[in-house]
Amino acid sequence: MTQAANPIEFYFDFASPFAWLIADGLTDLAARHGREVAWRPILLFAVFKSVGLPAPMETATKRKYLLHDMLRSAQVYGVTYRHPTSFPAVSPLPARMFYAIDHQDSALARRFARATLEAHYVQDRDITQPDVLAEVANGLGLKAADVLAAASGDEVKAALRDAVDTATAKGMIGSPYVVIDNEPFFGADRLPHMDWWLRQQAQR
Amino acid sequence: MTQAANPIEFYFDFASPFAWLIADGLTDLAARHGREVAWRPILLFAVFKSVGLPAPMETATKRKYLLHDMLRSAQVYGVTYRHPTSFPAVSPLPARMFYAIDHQDSALARRFARATLEAHYVQDRDITQPDVLAEVANGLGLKAADVLAAASGDEVKAALRDAVDTATAKGMIGSPYVVIDNEPFFGADRLPHMDWWLRQQAQR
Repeated sequence: MTQAANPIEFYFDFASPFAWLIADGLTDLAARHGREVAWRPILLFAVFKSVGLPAPMETATKRKYLLHDMLRSAQVYGVTYRHPTSFPAVSPLPARMFYAIDHQDSALARRFARATLEAHYVQDRDITQPDVLAEVANGLGLKAADVLAAASGDEVKAALRDAVDTATAKGMIGSPYVVIDNEPFFGADRLPHMDWWLRQQAQR
Repeated sequence: MTQAANPIEFYFDFASPFAWLIADGLTDLAARHGREVAWRPILLFAVFKSVGLPAPMETATKRKYLLHDMLRSAQVYGVTYRHPTSFPAVSPLPARMFYAIDHQDSALARRFARATLEAHYVQDRDITQPDVLAEVANGLGLKAADVLAAASGDEVKAALRDAVDTATAKGMIGSPYVVIDNEPFFGADRLPHMDWWLRQQAQR
């Protein structure tokens, strides 16, 4: 290729266990295909509202299946996971902190996102709590107080709103939702499909 | 094992492309693990009604994604597939004919089910039409007129109702829905999860 390939767009909600289940696998897949991953946290309830979809966890039968499928999928994929006590952790704060960091340093923002998912889905921390998120940020060498202050700024709120609008426009129907050169993939189970698609493109 | 293993329960709607996408793969997986497959056609709208779920194709954004995902999944899995002209083919007739045949010969009923899915998703035949289904039945050496007559009997209607009730009770949330020894798997993408689960059981 003569020009740099587009980054792989990774739309997800911090409250989505399946986002954690795909995160490292997606990073590995992207690296194998010479791509970056553009992490794009969104608020799933806002996307569902725009698209006109009910939240899957609202239906008892589906909720029961999904809770079981999360645990089993983690084992199948070899990802450490446990159901967080504070589940689902619906809050705009981790996404806002992400965009506050992303504005300065996108690599550091990715590390913050991964560490936040790990804190929630491995260490069972409540990521709706500012002090928990401050600890995550401090652990990466950030000044948590500055990040938290920036997270309430208009610029950051606008960035999160833009991400929600972009995800909606690109057809997001659940988390994780991955877009590679306009090709959409929904679900933590779609890594083999992405791999197949990227191989097809490479042969063209 | 000292006693025969339970058959793998395969709940599906003839109107579901993903049922066709998993059918042969499921048969192969079952054979590798020394299991039979018990084909159980149901009416998905009736299951959705009981469970309280909207049909996924009702939401425009989800419908668009799923139509694309069907074509791509077929390529990823190496299954011949094209969108039928008469899609979705919602009708109780193929399921009723299945149970009419199943009452006499379950192996033949499986062959009828597979041939009906193939007629619809490969040959683009309209499987809501009695003459199309009669052709499928005749092609398997059945007397189509007898099967069609039996398909409207009370016993067959009761068998289909029972299958819908059983699928609902077992937590069906979409087609295909596979149950192995009470372990549920939803979706054409769950063959690797079934394989993992069966291997785990074998090691116990």
